[in-house]
Amino acid sequence: MKRRKFLYSAIGIAGTTALGSCGLIFQNKTQPNINWQMATSWPKSLDIKYGAAEFVCQRVSEMTNGRFLITPYPANEIVPALKVLNAVENGTVECGHTDSFYYIDKSLALAFGTGVPFGLNARQQDAWLYEGGGLEAMQEIYAEFGVINFPAGNSGVQMGGWFKKQINSVADMKGLKMRIPGLGGEVMKQLGVDVRRLAGGEIYQAMRNNEIDAAEWIGPYEDERLRLNEVAAFYYYPGWWEPGSSDEVQVNRARWAQLSDEYQEIFKAACTEANLRTIARYDKLNRSALRRIIAGGTKLTPYSQEILQVCKKKAFEIYEENASKDTTFKKVYEQWKTFREQIYQWHGVNELEFSKISFIL
Amino acid sequence: MKRRKFLYSAIGIAGTTALGSCGLIFQNKTQPNINWQMATSWPKSLDIKYGAAEFVCQRVSEMTNGRFLITPYPANEIVPALKVLNAVENGTVECGHTDSFYYIDKSLALAFGTGVPFGLNARQQDAWLYEGGGLEAMQEIYAEFGVINFPAGNSGVQMGGWFKKQINSVADMKGLKMRIPGLGGEVMKQLGVDVRRLAGGEIYQAMRNNEIDAAEWIGPYEDERLRLNEVAAFYYYPGWWEPGSSDEVQVNRARWAQLSDEYQEIFKAACTEANLRTIARYDKLNRSALRRIIAGGTKLTPYSQEILQVCKKKAFEIYEENASKDTTFKKVYEQWKTFREQIYQWHGVNELEFSKISFIL
Repeated sequence: MKRRKFLYSAIGIAGTTALGSCGLIFQNKTQPNINWQMATSWPKSLDIKYGAAEFVCQRVSEMTNGRFLITPYPANEIVPALKVLNAVENGTVECGHTDSFYYIDKSLALAFGTGVPFGLNARQQDAWLYEGGGLEAMQEIYAEFGVINFPAGNSGVQMGGWFKKQINSVADMKGLKMRIPGLGGEVMKQLGVDVRRLAGGEIYQAMRNNEIDAAEWIGPYEDERLRLNEVAAFYYYPGWWEPGSSDEVQVNRARWAQLSDEYQEIFKAACTEANLRTIARYDKLNRSALRRIIAGGTKLTPYSQEILQVCKKKAFEIYEENASKDTTFKKVYEQWKTFREQIYQWHGVNELEFSKISFIL
Repeated sequence: MKRRKFLYSAIGIAGTTALGSCGLIFQNKTQPNINWQMATSWPKSLDIKYGAAEFVCQRVSEMTNGRFLITPYPANEIVPALKVLNAVENGTVECGHTDSFYYIDKSLALAFGTGVPFGLNARQQDAWLYEGGGLEAMQEIYAEFGVINFPAGNSGVQMGGWFKKQINSVADMKGLKMRIPGLGGEVMKQLGVDVRRLAGGEIYQAMRNNEIDAAEWIGPYEDERLRLNEVAAFYYYPGWWEPGSSDEVQVNRARWAQLSDEYQEIFKAACTEANLRTIARYDKLNRSALRRIIAGGTKLTPYSQEILQVCKKKAFEIYEENASKDTTFKKVYEQWKTFREQIYQWHGVNELEFSKISFIL
């Protein structure tokens, strides 16, 4: 821990008066009252993701007895959903809760801060970020924008989306109109999918009106809230494009530097807590939502090995291409790729073999 | 958050003098200086587990600017390794870092606080503890002893141990002298294994002198430190008896009640941080240790399906038997079993299928 020292004279009014009457200047260690705003990329209806932002704010308040207050705002209320980084950069807000991959126009390598297709699952993403040099790499990129980031949420492997009809091969994907954003969409395009970008709230109607044939959202709990099980019969898995996506908190560095060491450490702890608690909440709620969805008649279907193999190949071709044209991407990608191979080997032994034997009840 | 209120008059000496000279009584919100002791079950050589205890103490100090100081102690320095709970219960120390399953003589159900054979992996254990009622169940048991507990570490699926010769079937296990403690040992006994209990530091010599034929410890990083790869050729996986063992911090409830709300919340956050950071550290270090072990000529070998199936059956027979004779165990077991089945179903879809396709490089 760095050892910058701050002194505060922010004592209570009664104290100030009392001291003033003695003619003394008295500095104690009471931390000052602070009010921050946190913009987020999430509507309130995404209650786990928005809930993670609320959780960070709540925990900071609890750990400072209400002296460090942060007010979270839903997407578009004070800042557009996908402009959180810009607002934090400009100091419009002190901090935000969002995903780094929304900002790859600023630096392609920010994709790894959230996660990429066929990348790291939640636990591996945490291992990479906290212990494998990942967070340092992302913070180095954000420093250029005067921002610092901390992991603060993860959904685990998402679902592979809703389809009106069964798809068995890469050939079946061709011409399919599918709502899928980001790098997953880039991969799908290479399979001949007609990729559409729609906001979450638009998916249900588009599927119902046959404007699209397929759509991915998040996982059982969130998908059920959008009623996607009412407009498509087949629920595919796994969602290989988001195997362990990290949400994060971004903070304006100038405002960060004004915090005492204590407040900085408390803030970081609140983010780490949110990171762990969010996935536990997803697991709890997805678990029961999946059971309801299956009971409702949805056909749970795995992607074919052919589709998965082709998509994996295409994904890595995209990474190699990005690496050839962007030196920062190349640097992060190569370090990440080695970490991925090594942790895959380790988890391929212990975690995978345990899951294979134990999950079969 | 509960709203108990504490007032502190613990201001600095200069302040006290100044105020005293004015004849005023002045209470501010500065938190008092506190010094606690944390007994642990870990020798310093178990640097990840002992490191988790140190991490909790360090983070509490950082978040309170050194006003709440906790000193960690290695196993047996002030309290015997497996008597941490007793010391916390008696108030000999304020808190401890240990595993709940060491204390099943007090309540059989404490086995679930750490984890049981063929139980929950690390992520599932966290989901159960934080969101699935697990932590409440454990805290209810500990309340009888005047103790409160918080998760603070996890190793993930451990390895299945070191064997001098290959074992292919349950028949090959019969008469094998193996170092394996706890419920894993109970299951092995039912396969005719001659179960031995040895401390970590004794395993290497016992293997070398052929006093035992096999031994389990933790995973690649810790096992390599004990040089077990020098005394046995076969390294089995997975370690089905510890699929996601939680370490925890235990606190004396009377001392806990004396903490301000802020200090309590900071303390809890430090434990949650340790929980997430410990497994990230294990993953990082096991990953490279496994590569070194394989490069050194060790034969990495999976347990046969027959052995795993028989062990799983025996494990659940033990749980059913415990449930029939202990009402607290029965209550926790039945709730846990349902949670396990449902989260297995969910992770059997998304996590397992992603791992199966993606871990194959």
